[in-house]
Amino acid sequence: MDLKEAGIDEGISEVIVTTKSASGKLNAAPIGIITTTSEDKDKDKNNHFVKLYEGSKTLSNLMETNKLMANVTDDAVLFVKAAFDNLNETYFSFFSGLPALTEANSWIIFQSVLAEECSEFYLFQLTPIAVKINRKEVKAINRGLNAVIEATILATRYDVVIEDEREKEELKKLMVHYAGIVKKCGGRREKEAMGILDENFLLLDE
Amino acid sequence: MDLKEAGIDEGISEVIVTTKSASGKLNAAPIGIITTTSEDKDKDKNNHFVKLYEGSKTLSNLMETNKLMANVTDDAVLFVKAAFDNLNETYFSFFSGLPALTEANSWIIFQSVLAEECSEFYLFQLTPIAVKINRKEVKAINRGLNAVIEATILATRYDVVIEDEREKEELKKLMVHYAGIVKKCGGRREKEAMGILDENFLLLDE
Repeated sequence: MDLKEAGIDEGISEVIVTTKSASGKLNAAPIGIITTTSEDKDKDKNNHFVKLYEGSKTLSNLMETNKLMANVTDDAVLFVKAAFDNLNETYFSFFSGLPALTEANSWIIFQSVLAEECSEFYLFQLTPIAVKINRKEVKAINRGLNAVIEATILATRYDVVIEDEREKEELKKLMVHYAGIVKKCGGRREKEAMGILDENFLLLDE
Repeated sequence: MDLKEAGIDEGISEVIVTTKSASGKLNAAPIGIITTTSEDKDKDKNNHFVKLYEGSKTLSNLMETNKLMANVTDDAVLFVKAAFDNLNETYFSFFSGLPALTEANSWIIFQSVLAEECSEFYLFQLTPIAVKINRKEVKAINRGLNAVIEATILATRYDVVIEDEREKEELKKLMVHYAGIVKKCGGRREKEAMGILDENFLLLDE
């Protein structure tokens, strides 16, 4: 199954992963799908992986169900809301019994197998079992969109470095840098996303 | 004419602008199309602008012809090659007599009017006069792609700050940061683009 048409290509594809616990609770989180290419009988073969950390709901859901949905989207607001656990049920649809984000451009269901486990992370190999493309589009690169993604990653790391004052300062400086790019280059969705991020970041900092 | 479907939306859209001089010489350069929204009779109206700096070929061509083509693409290699003036004729097609990049996802021809001129820049207001969508797609966000764009912007600024040792060091530190993101997250095109950027950057630094 070639996932390039569905938006998953070599390198790390930043998507929103939706999962369901055994008891049916839904979760969404921004996560990178790692795709590596190996040569297989003169033909490139893509392998997909995901790295998850202790304490994440995606990890515990995957342990229970061995399935995840990758939602491909370029909506900055969805990324920020997913990062701070603010996507309620109205954002979800279902595809083959698994939760998906209604507004995503494509959905890919992966079956997972634990490939590596160490003290720091769990690595799962992923096999695509179903794909749905909802919407194709043309979109110019917007530096504001990526600034939101980078700032979201920083914000979710803030909890981890909270004991280290120097790292905290460095991180705050970078947040200001990215906020500046969003202000200059972003559209409405990027500015709305940065606003939500700011609110959540202030809560983290208290 | 609504350009959203062709990929140009509110904020700054990073595109490759192709132009032709009066004598027919082709040029390509990565440039941001600025789109602002104003309310017009209860309906949002988009206004498009481009800011150009003294010495750029795009500026002199626009002065001569009052027309530019915005090529919407997410190909990192095209951005880097355009920034360092390395796109030869084989990359070009023609649309309504104006040069365009064959591989771009969409083409928009703009008519330009000088709106503001100061010692630092020239601001042109742009009116779209023709649009062609070549290819729609789904693509997950790749942090490597944007790292290439950010690094390209830094590299093109390097010439300007070359006298300031502190700024040069700061800029190099950021370049290393972005190169790290490309190495970790980029696909084949992003890595190829970063390689070209590195070569050109080393030349700048000599």
